[in-house]
Amino acid sequence: MTPTPSLHWTAGLHHDGSALYVSNPLPSLGETVEIRLRVPVSAPIRRVFLRTAPDGEAALEPMSQSRADSVCAWWVASLKITMPLMHYRFKLMTAEGSYMLNARGVSRADSPDADDFKLVADFDAPAWLEEAVFYQIFPDRFHNGDPSNDVPDGAWTYKGFATQRRAWGLPPLPWEQGGAVDFYGGDLQGIAQKLDYLSDLGVTALFLNPIFTAYTNHRYDIADYHHVDPHLGGDAALIALRAACDRAGMRLILDVTPNHCGWRNAWFTAAQADPHAPTASFFTFTHHPDSYESWLGHKSLVKLNYRSPALRDAMYRAPDSVMRYWLREPYRIDGWRLDVANMTARQGAVQLSHDVWRELRAAVKRDRPEAYLLGEHSFDGTPHLQGDELDASIDYQGFTTPLWGWLLGDLPFPIPDWMDTVPLPAEVMVEHWRRFRDIVPWAVIRQQFNQLGCHDTPRVRTIFGGDARRVKIGVAVMMTMPGVPSIYYGDEIGMDGGPDPDNRRCMIWDESHWDHDLRAYHQTFTRLRREAPALRQGGYQVLHAQGDLLLYQRQSADQRLLVLTYRGQTPLPDLCLPVWHAGLPDGSLLRAIAGTFSPTQPLQVQAGHLTLPELPPLSALVLEG
Amino acid sequence: MTPTPSLHWTAGLHHDGSALYVSNPLPSLGETVEIRLRVPVSAPIRRVFLRTAPDGEAALEPMSQSRADSVCAWWVASLKITMPLMHYRFKLMTAEGSYMLNARGVSRADSPDADDFKLVADFDAPAWLEEAVFYQIFPDRFHNGDPSNDVPDGAWTYKGFATQRRAWGLPPLPWEQGGAVDFYGGDLQGIAQKLDYLSDLGVTALFLNPIFTAYTNHRYDIADYHHVDPHLGGDAALIALRAACDRAGMRLILDVTPNHCGWRNAWFTAAQADPHAPTASFFTFTHHPDSYESWLGHKSLVKLNYRSPALRDAMYRAPDSVMRYWLREPYRIDGWRLDVANMTARQGAVQLSHDVWRELRAAVKRDRPEAYLLGEHSFDGTPHLQGDELDASIDYQGFTTPLWGWLLGDLPFPIPDWMDTVPLPAEVMVEHWRRFRDIVPWAVIRQQFNQLGCHDTPRVRTIFGGDARRVKIGVAVMMTMPGVPSIYYGDEIGMDGGPDPDNRRCMIWDESHWDHDLRAYHQTFTRLRREAPALRQGGYQVLHAQGDLLLYQRQSADQRLLVLTYRGQTPLPDLCLPVWHAGLPDGSLLRAIAGTFSPTQPLQVQAGHLTLPELPPLSALVLEG
Repeated sequence: MTPTPSLHWTAGLHHDGSALYVSNPLPSLGETVEIRLRVPVSAPIRRVFLRTAPDGEAALEPMSQSRADSVCAWWVASLKITMPLMHYRFKLMTAEGSYMLNARGVSRADSPDADDFKLVADFDAPAWLEEAVFYQIFPDRFHNGDPSNDVPDGAWTYKGFATQRRAWGLPPLPWEQGGAVDFYGGDLQGIAQKLDYLSDLGVTALFLNPIFTAYTNHRYDIADYHHVDPHLGGDAALIALRAACDRAGMRLILDVTPNHCGWRNAWFTAAQADPHAPTASFFTFTHHPDSYESWLGHKSLVKLNYRSPALRDAMYRAPDSVMRYWLREPYRIDGWRLDVANMTARQGAVQLSHDVWRELRAAVKRDRPEAYLLGEHSFDGTPHLQGDELDASIDYQGFTTPLWGWLLGDLPFPIPDWMDTVPLPAEVMVEHWRRFRDIVPWAVIRQQFNQLGCHDTPRVRTIFGGDARRVKIGVAVMMTMPGVPSIYYGDEIGMDGGPDPDNRRCMIWDESHWDHDLRAYHQTFTRLRREAPALRQGGYQVLHAQGDLLLYQRQSADQRLLVLTYRGQTPLPDLCLPVWHAGLPDGSLLRAIAGTFSPTQPLQVQAGHLTLPELPPLSALVLEG
Repeated sequence: MTPTPSLHWTAGLHHDGSALYVSNPLPSLGETVEIRLRVPVSAPIRRVFLRTAPDGEAALEPMSQSRADSVCAWWVASLKITMPLMHYRFKLMTAEGSYMLNARGVSRADSPDADDFKLVADFDAPAWLEEAVFYQIFPDRFHNGDPSNDVPDGAWTYKGFATQRRAWGLPPLPWEQGGAVDFYGGDLQGIAQKLDYLSDLGVTALFLNPIFTAYTNHRYDIADYHHVDPHLGGDAALIALRAACDRAGMRLILDVTPNHCGWRNAWFTAAQADPHAPTASFFTFTHHPDSYESWLGHKSLVKLNYRSPALRDAMYRAPDSVMRYWLREPYRIDGWRLDVANMTARQGAVQLSHDVWRELRAAVKRDRPEAYLLGEHSFDGTPHLQGDELDASIDYQGFTTPLWGWLLGDLPFPIPDWMDTVPLPAEVMVEHWRRFRDIVPWAVIRQQFNQLGCHDTPRVRTIFGGDARRVKIGVAVMMTMPGVPSIYYGDEIGMDGGPDPDNRRCMIWDESHWDHDLRAYHQTFTRLRREAPALRQGGYQVLHAQGDLLLYQRQSADQRLLVLTYRGQTPLPDLCLPVWHAGLPDGSLLRAIAGTFSPTQPLQVQAGHLTLPELPPLSALVLEG
C-alpha cells in the first residue's frame, strides 16, 4: 500500500450512517448502538474517541480497535440514544496532533455540532423507499386514457384566457398565448393504462403533479383539496389507479400545495364574501376583500395563514384534513410531495415553519408511519431535515444543481445573468453536495429525492446541451447515489425541452421517436438500483473528485461498488488512481457491471492503486469488487 | 499592487456586519439598510448579487459599484429587513465562474443558509458593551473587606466536610481535603474597597461568580436565589457595591444557575418533604424523595425541570422571579452570567432549551433592554446565538480554546488523554474561530465574551507554560478581537494556577509579588480597547494566518488597526507580507501604537506588501494606519 504523496492518511478515515458503521441506523430512544470508524492501518493513531454532547455537554467515549486487515482497522464504541437527535463526531489523537472527523470532513479545527454526524431516534422511515425508483408525471401530458373527460375549448376563462383543447404532440403554448389553460387530455386512466410500460422501465413508484380540482393545466391553483379533478377522471379514477398500482407493486405519491390555494377555492371565495366566514382566518387580508398575501405576488395563488388554528385543523390536524384524508382507503396514497415547502408557514415577521412541519409530521405519521413526506426545497431544506419534520426534500442543492454545473452543456435558451456558465470542476460539485447532504441524518440522506430535472426545470438532456452521453452520466450518478432516484416522464426516451412550459411537452408514444439505447440504459440502472445491496443499504465515500473525474464507493456488508464518471471530451489514457483509502486490499478484483462502455478485463488493485483502462469521452462505469 | 502568486484575488473580498459594511448594524423590522461589499479592483467581475432568501425563497438583488480607489471597489445594494433574522450572502459572476461569499468564506461551492451572514431585526444590544472591559472575581478569594462576616471553622458540614477558615494566601485545599468548604473571607465589601485598583487597571465592568446564599465556597449550590450570602455581606453589601460601581462608572453582572439549585434550597427541601408541595414540579424525581435528576450526577446540584410552568414563573416570568428581581432597584445589576447554559432545560427526550431562552430573553429585555444575557457554553452555543435567545456566550470555541492551542506551553499538571499537546498552527486556530464565530450575527459576535482563563480552567499563564510573553500575545489578541474582553482576577499581575481549586488562589495584594510589567501592559491594552474606534465598532478581517504568524485587521470609518502576533521561539527576520487584500493602498504608513516591542520607523505599504522589521520571539504589535 503506497499512498500517493498527495493523499494524506486521513483520506482513509471513513464513517457514514449506514449499517456497516452504525449497528442500527434506525434506533429507538433508549437503545444502545455500536458506532464504527474505519481507519487506515498506517495511521499514527494513539487514541480514538467518540465525541457526543448529551444535553449539550461534551462527552468523550474511548473507542477500541475491534479488528483489522492488511488495509484498515475498525474502531468501535457504544452510543446510548438518549435524545431525539444524537450528534456525534470522532476525535483522533495522533503523533501529528488531534483530528476531528465529522460530516463536513476531517480537520484539526473543531466544528459546531451542526456539522456532526446525526442519528435520529424513533424515526418513521418508509421502508419501501429502499428500492424505490420514482417516475414523475405531469398528468395532462402523459397519456389520454379517456377522451370523454377532456377539457373542451372555452370551458372557462382564467386571467382572460379561454381554455384550449390541443392535439397530442403539439408544443405547449407559451404563457402569453396559452395562459396555462391549454389542455392535452392526459388523465389518471391514461396513467393506469401505461403501468406496464413503467414496470418494464423498472419504475416502482409514481409521483403525480397536482390532480385535485383546479383551473389550470398545472393545477397548483387547487380549488378543492378533497376531490380529484373530473377532467383527470375524478375520485373514481384515483381509486382505480390505486388498485392498478397495487397490482403492479407500485407506490403512489401526490402533489399538494400547503403554502397556498387557488383563488377559486371555496375556502377563499367564502372568506372574500364574508370577513367572518369560518375560513376567513385561513388567509391574510391586507385590505378585505381584494388585497391579500399571495405566492410571490400572484393573486391567483393565495397564501395560507398558519397562525390560524382552524387552518391547521383543515390541513393536517382533523381526521378529514387534507393530509390525512387521502392517506386512507380507498385512496391510500403513499405520501405527499409538498409544494413550496420552503415558503410554507413563513410570512415575514411570522415564521412558523418548524412548528407546522413538526405538527404535520406527527399527525401524518400517527396514521401512516410509512407515508413519505417530501418537501420541495430548491434552496436549503436542511433546517427541516433533522428528523422531526420532513422525511426528505427534493434535493436540488445536495444533488441536482451541482451535477448540472459539472455536466453543463451549451444552452439553447436565454439564461438569467445570475446563472453560472462555467462548468464546475468535480471537487466543487462534491464540496457543494457535501455541505447540503452530509449535515442531515443518514436516515434522511438515504430518503432524499434525487432528480435530473422536472416540470420546473429545463429537461436534463437540454441542460446537458442535447448530449445523451451526459444524460447517461447523470443517470449513472442519480441511480447510484444515496437517496431516491426519480425519472421525469420522457427523459428516458430522450425528450428535449427548455424552461416551462416547453419542459411539459406531451409524452411521445411513437416508438420510432424514442432513443431506445437511452431507455435500455435506464432499464439497466433501475434494475441495479432496485437490486444491488450496496445501493439499497450501502454507505457512501468519495474517493476522487477532480476536474473531469469523479470516483465514489457504495458499500454494504455484502457488496462493494465503485462508480466512475468522466466528463472529459477526449479519451483519458491509462490513469492510476489511489483506492487504498476505500479499504480495498491489494489483489482485489473489480469487474464492470454497468456503464457506457465495457472494459474487457477485470481491474486489479495493486499497491493501493487501480490502473484504469482508457476512458472514452463522457463515460460512466460501475465496478463491483 | 502585485498580489503574491499564492493569494488569489478572492482574498481581497471582504464583508462583515460592522458599520462600514452594513449601514445600520442594529436595524428595525421593516427598515431598509445598505449592504456593502469590498472587492479588489483587479477582480474579473461581471456582475455582483446580494443573495437573500426572504421566507425561504432565493432572491438575487443586483449590486452596483458605488466608488473605487486604487485598490478596491465598493459594491452596494439595499436590503429590506422583512424577517426577524435576515440571512444573506454574495454571488459574484466572473470570468472564472461564479463565487459565493458567506460567513464561512469564499467558494465556488454554494452553502446552506446557516453559513450566511446574518442580520437581526430589533435586537436589544446593551450599548455599554462597546467599551466594556470585564474583570471576573471569585468572591471568596479577591479581598476580605469585612472579617466580621467570615465563615468560622465548623460553621456547617457539607458532604462530610466541616467549614474551614483559611488564612489569606494559603493554597486552596484540594477537593478531597477541603470539600469546597475552605473559606478565605473575600466579600463584596472587599470588592468595593478595590474599585480604585480596578479603575486604574482600566476595567469598566465586573463579573462576580455566584454571591447568593449557598453552602460551598463556589456557591454554585444556590440555597436562596433571593438573598446575597451573609458571609459576602448580604443584600446590603450588594446595594453598597452597586452604588460604588455607579460612582466608578462600572457595570456589574452576576452569576446564576438556571440549570440546577443546591440541595439545601428551600424549593427542593419542600419538594422532598411533600410530593405535593408547590415546588415539587420544579424537579424530576425518579423515586421520591431521594432519587432525582442532578447535574452530571452530583446529587448536591439538583436539576431544574422546565416542563414546569411554575418553575418558569419563578425563574423569569413573574415580576419577582429570579432573573427580573435583581435587575431592579436597589440592586440594578446589568446582566446575568448564566451558568451551564448549554445544559439548561435539556433532559434527554425533553429538549426545551430554545423555548426557555426565548421566553427568558423576552421577559428580561422587556424590563431592561440593556441587560446582558451571557450564557456559559464551553462547547457550542451557536444555536442559541441567533439573536432571539442569548446576547452572547462565553466564547470558548470562537476564541479561547483555539488560542490556547496556538500558544500552548508545557503543562505542569497531568492532562486528560483527549487533550491535544501538539500546538495548532495559526491557520487551524483561525479556521476553528471562523466556524464558531462567523455563523452568528455580527450584533452577537461583537458581544461575545472573550477570556483567556477563568475559575473553571487553569490560569492562562500556566496554560502558556509560565511564559509571560505568551500571556502578552494572548492579551493583545483578546483586547483587539471583536467581542468583550474579560480579565480573570490576578491574571494581570501574573498569578499562576493549575486546574481548580488551584486556579482560585487568593488575590495577591503584596505588590512586591506582582509582575508590574505585565500589569502595565494590561493597562495599555484596556485603554486601547476602550478608546480605539476600530476596536469599539470596527470590522474584522484575517489577513495572514500561517504556522507561527497571525495578522488581522480591525477597521472602522475613522481608524484602521493591524494586529500582528508571532509565537515563534526565534527572531523572525524581515518578512514581506501581502496587505493589498486589506484594502490598503500603496504608500500607506503604519505606526506601532502598542505591543511587546517598538519598531523605530513607521512601516510603508509598497506594491501591496508590507515589509516587517525583525520580529522578536513571542511578540505582538498593534499598528495604526
